Amino acid sequence: MQQFTKIQEMKDYLRPMQSAGQKIGLVPTMGYLHEGHLSLIRRAVQESDIAVVSIFVNPIQFGPSEDLAKYPHNLAKDLELIDKTGAAVVFTPDAVEMYGDNHLTFVHVEKITDILCGPFRPGHFQGVATVVNKLFNIVRPDKAYFGQKDGQQAMVIQKMVRDLNMDVTIITCPTVREADGLAMSSRNTYLNVAERSQAPVLYQVLTAAKDMIQGSITDGVLIKKQIKTMISSKPLANIEYISLVDASSFREISQVSGPVMIALAVKFGATRLIDNIIVEG
Amino acid sequence: MQQFTKIQEMKDYLRPMQSAGQKIGLVPTMGYLHEGHLSLIRRAVQESDIAVVSIFVNPIQFGPSEDLAKYPHNLAKDLELIDKTGAAVVFTPDAVEMYGDNHLTFVHVEKITDILCGPFRPGHFQGVATVVNKLFNIVRPDKAYFGQKDGQQAMVIQKMVRDLNMDVTIITCPTVREADGLAMSSRNTYLNVAERSQAPVLYQVLTAAKDMIQGSITDGVLIKKQIKTMISSKPLANIEYISLVDASSFREISQVSGPVMIALAVKFGATRLIDNIIVEG
Repeated sequence: MQQFTKIQEMKDYLRPMQSAGQKIGLVPTMGYLHEGHLSLIRRAVQESDIAVVSIFVNPIQFGPSEDLAKYPHNLAKDLELIDKTGAAVVFTPDAVEMYGDNHLTFVHVEKITDILCGPFRPGHFQGVATVVNKLFNIVRPDKAYFGQKDGQQAMVIQKMVRDLNMDVTIITCPTVREADGLAMSSRNTYLNVAERSQAPVLYQVLTAAKDMIQGSITDGVLIKKQIKTMISSKPLANIEYISLVDASSFREISQVSGPVMIALAVKFGATRLIDNIIVEG
Repeated sequence: MQQFTKIQEMKDYLRPMQSAGQKIGLVPTMGYLHEGHLSLIRRAVQESDIAVVSIFVNPIQFGPSEDLAKYPHNLAKDLELIDKTGAAVVFTPDAVEMYGDNHLTFVHVEKITDILCGPFRPGHFQGVATVVNKLFNIVRPDKAYFGQKDGQQAMVIQKMVRDLNMDVTIITCPTVREADGLAMSSRNTYLNVAERSQAPVLYQVLTAAKDMIQGSITDGVLIKKQIKTMISSKPLANIEYISLVDASSFREISQVSGPVMIALAVKFGATRLIDNIIVEG
């Protein structure tokens, strides 16, 4: 497995292979890998000639009051885990390499960043779109892999790729969960024992909402009210938002009449967790 | 010469040639070509295996009170002129092909778009950066050619390319001028006879300012005052701005101590003309 920390070295390594027709799969991550990341990497290995994993804790996607400084990391462990998947390349630039001291260019996706997590994390999706745009230009992947857990992120990246005519196919992979249903996330490590024991309510309410829809309940207000009641029964949970959005237009809906994404963000103490499921409706 | 109007057809035509190692030169234009454009195209032909000229009047770089609706065009003449240069490909998409009905992604370059033309044309450089980003993703050129007349545009694109790690070399070519010094521009066609007769003052003042700097006058305020006096002697001229900026940092300067760009925008009637020169200082 090759590791690169410099943008130009990464390009110089990949371009001749690309000229020779090799297909590149990219899995962009912020490290501290869990089984969710590994499922993406394994799929990239399976579908590409060269699977590239990037590890970069992107400062511009964190707000000033967010957890950039304490974001968990363990590069040695990450490299060991990636090596076992058969991925060929790991790209681990630092913030100076990625942004220098005079970065002025940002990619912004409008509207679909104004809902769900957007209002609670101003600038977050601009930071995500910008770094992913850069990674796509550096790596020039044929396919790039993202997790459904960050459903809005996947939508934003998909929209950026289409609007800017980038030559990359975005593959969104199913959320990987713990045995009790909690979506895997690097941030789960922040939870204390009590918080961790209550966090599975997120998947429980998503499943309950899915059951309601499949039981022909189409009233969005009623579904959200039921979700709210269930989450509120957990004393450590603080709801940030509960949303039902059309799964393709990403517009908030009040009536279920087709595929719908049920998405939520809930804080346990200082730890903000997100989850979502798509229901055919 | 091949002409394409569809993005996918343009990509499908170029990608196999790129895989075979052919080098692409791109000249993005808004059509109504003059000798300035042709000088860029000839250079692209000379330096590339395949020279691509795009013609697209980009709606998102025009403000609501600007001249989008009346921007001059003559596609038949443009195609004839391009054909004579030996360029291999012309790309002429329409606005629906480029933006569809739900375009949400924009590329913004901060700071260097807040000066010179920026404050007078809000959104202009975001429109330019976005369309050029798209064209670079569609064509994937090795080199792209821009005129020094639009000096700030060239700087913005150069900055975007560096910040987003795009694989393209930006070549800025000298401004081509009429015999009396007026910088060639598709918008010169808007000028009436009286305005046209006074417009050469722009190059005269730039030359005078150059002479001052080369005569060891380094006081920016004095230089700008002299320029202002000379332009004001033309009754049809309305100054929008006169700026001296550091030629590499693009920061406004009050004292000349190295390479400097002297830039200005002046209206003659409803017609807004820009020009600039770089002086070693």
